[in-house]
Amino acid sequence: MPVIVQKYGGTSVGDTGRIKNVARRICATQDEGYQVVAVVSAMGDATDELLRMAHEISAEPPERELDVLLSNGERISVALLAMAIHEMGHRAVSLSGRQAGIQTNTVFTKARITGVETGRLREELDNGKIVLVAGFQGVSVDEDITTLGRGGSDTTAVAIAAALGAEECEIYTDVDGVYTADPRVVGLARKLDTVSYQEMLEMAATGAEVLMLRSVEYAQKYKVTLHVRSSFTDEAGTWIREEDESMEKAVVSAVSHTTDESKLTLLRLPDRPGVAATVFGDLAEAGVNVDMIIQNVSEQGTTDISFTVVQADLPAAQQALDRITDELGVAYIIGEQMGKVSIIGAGMKSYPGVAAKMFKTLADASINIEMISTSSIKVSCVIERDQVEKAVRALHEAFNLG
Amino acid sequence: MPVIVQKYGGTSVGDTGRIKNVARRICATQDEGYQVVAVVSAMGDATDELLRMAHEISAEPPERELDVLLSNGERISVALLAMAIHEMGHRAVSLSGRQAGIQTNTVFTKARITGVETGRLREELDNGKIVLVAGFQGVSVDEDITTLGRGGSDTTAVAIAAALGAEECEIYTDVDGVYTADPRVVGLARKLDTVSYQEMLEMAATGAEVLMLRSVEYAQKYKVTLHVRSSFTDEAGTWIREEDESMEKAVVSAVSHTTDESKLTLLRLPDRPGVAATVFGDLAEAGVNVDMIIQNVSEQGTTDISFTVVQADLPAAQQALDRITDELGVAYIIGEQMGKVSIIGAGMKSYPGVAAKMFKTLADASINIEMISTSSIKVSCVIERDQVEKAVRALHEAFNLG
Repeated sequence: MPVIVQKYGGTSVGDTGRIKNVARRICATQDEGYQVVAVVSAMGDATDELLRMAHEISAEPPERELDVLLSNGERISVALLAMAIHEMGHRAVSLSGRQAGIQTNTVFTKARITGVETGRLREELDNGKIVLVAGFQGVSVDEDITTLGRGGSDTTAVAIAAALGAEECEIYTDVDGVYTADPRVVGLARKLDTVSYQEMLEMAATGAEVLMLRSVEYAQKYKVTLHVRSSFTDEAGTWIREEDESMEKAVVSAVSHTTDESKLTLLRLPDRPGVAATVFGDLAEAGVNVDMIIQNVSEQGTTDISFTVVQADLPAAQQALDRITDELGVAYIIGEQMGKVSIIGAGMKSYPGVAAKMFKTLADASINIEMISTSSIKVSCVIERDQVEKAVRALHEAFNLG
Repeated sequence: MPVIVQKYGGTSVGDTGRIKNVARRICATQDEGYQVVAVVSAMGDATDELLRMAHEISAEPPERELDVLLSNGERISVALLAMAIHEMGHRAVSLSGRQAGIQTNTVFTKARITGVETGRLREELDNGKIVLVAGFQGVSVDEDITTLGRGGSDTTAVAIAAALGAEECEIYTDVDGVYTADPRVVGLARKLDTVSYQEMLEMAATGAEVLMLRSVEYAQKYKVTLHVRSSFTDEAGTWIREEDESMEKAVVSAVSHTTDESKLTLLRLPDRPGVAATVFGDLAEAGVNVDMIIQNVSEQGTTDISFTVVQADLPAAQQALDRITDELGVAYIIGEQMGKVSIIGAGMKSYPGVAAKMFKTLADASINIEMISTSSIKVSCVIERDQVEKAVRALHEAFNLG
């Protein structure tokens, strides 16, 4: 019997009424002749409520205990969902991450899945049961509870789908698919039927929030077909799968954006080996996640280096740079209110001039480009934050995505 | 280094402020030179909140899933408590019932502890950590989460104390010890310094709510000294331990009572072998917990049998009796509003006349006795419910317990 893995996000199980809706959908899937595994997130704001209590006790709670605490949200969801399914006359069993065989490394709060021990999953499925798995969590080799970080339930679902050789991994969420741009910004944004892993990775990395990067990487690695869809309708959503001949290769498939970037520029840095390594090594040690890095050509033995960080990391970045620039005797400047707009398309590879068209579109809209970065299927431009929405709309129109 | 096991009930960890108080007490105990294991209940009404959600979904939730659900309350408490202890500069680790090695049978919602695998407990203690164990739960041989039923955290604590050979098991609660009578009923009730296991068992069985029967049985079996005390003061509470020479053997130590009994009497039942077995067999099958049973002498080949049940079981008892009495062609009568008053004392064994004094005291107060039951250290009388408080006060005074 084919296996289907479904994942339901926090809003889909936000209250007991919604849990019943999810139960109905799961029962219907089993009735269609599938073995069903459903991975479930914590109810609505349950995780925030647990975090609130933790922060009443400690500004910086130990991460091991934070994981013990937060793992309860998903365990509560699966137990309630199992009850709702029993109430509908189907048989279900809820499993914790550990019981479902989700093995991870020992990095608390952002553990990585190292394997899925499928013994119990298969046994319960073969007994005719619907299996409900608490998402976002696993067990480490030290027998400690770990959590997988933001978007962790998606990764749980993909990992189980891969381990069980599932036909498909359905990601149920509060949007009905992947769009050509954020519909809150572009009224004419269109739902995409199919997106390649590579495109989805670039979209996730450049601001599309529908799926977390790690779950897409995992799906790509194990060739798991994802289907992102809404838990509030029966309409098909967006399939994410390997690029193949049948897939229409749009030159540009989507426009993504972020509005939480800050830009830092080190001025007239000595242009000798090891300087960049020192700068970015120190930033990494300070826990600063650097996104885009640009180095201009050298002039008179010095060079300028610009890079972006998410704005939340700006204070830590400044602290590190104050120290570094003091040592090197150079200066730096900050562009705090920046954003990034990106175009993504698997067809871009074979069409020259896409980047040029993007730059011209932005220029026509009087938007100044501060930094550029490209990959084979993506062009990103850092621009002033208050011009991001205008840029997204202009690019969406210029590339006929509506 | 000696081990001490502490158990904190739901009101002791009712909010994050109280959790910090408990953390302080635990740290102080470690500072006194003990290895400390603390078993913790769910915060205040956390369990009720989980039950409320379950009942929104199902009138009769499957018990396996109820156990998965309810076990989260205690897991949340231990994680938060661990954070509070870290905040005070001590090292703590929270463990689920499974991680703490609490093994149970497979009877969901009222599992029994079958063993404690102390490997991880000892390892963490020997690493200098305070170990916090989620109470009320364990893991079955099928690797499922089980809960231990009402008062389960007490049993968890006693079982761990027994397995680790702890010096003492402290039960922290919202009262400051075991009293000669319920202080809400008898203003002059006095806290007892020491009570024997046997006395405590009789008290728990006859209405004293401070400790659940099963945890006392467990303590008696493994000779674990219990110390019931308040988490809101530093005063010593009541020790419960084996009766020995040094212990003052009061003729009567305490008066206990219940106000939720109902009495059923089967009239003129054929007095032949097997009839009682049929009646009580059928009641047991109907899930009715029968407390006291009295059979009067036979008259003309028939006899009357009276028994008591907790009032909540009355509807189920009536259903069973309707069927039985139909078959046997006999009648039954119900006394719905009954209660029970008991006197308990290890010294009773060697003093004749205690029961007589009890009956006279009740008679002098114009209280009619409906049923009597005795053990070597207890006399219980079933009386009208609205006379229970008067009876408790009269007995407390008659036996000079104030």
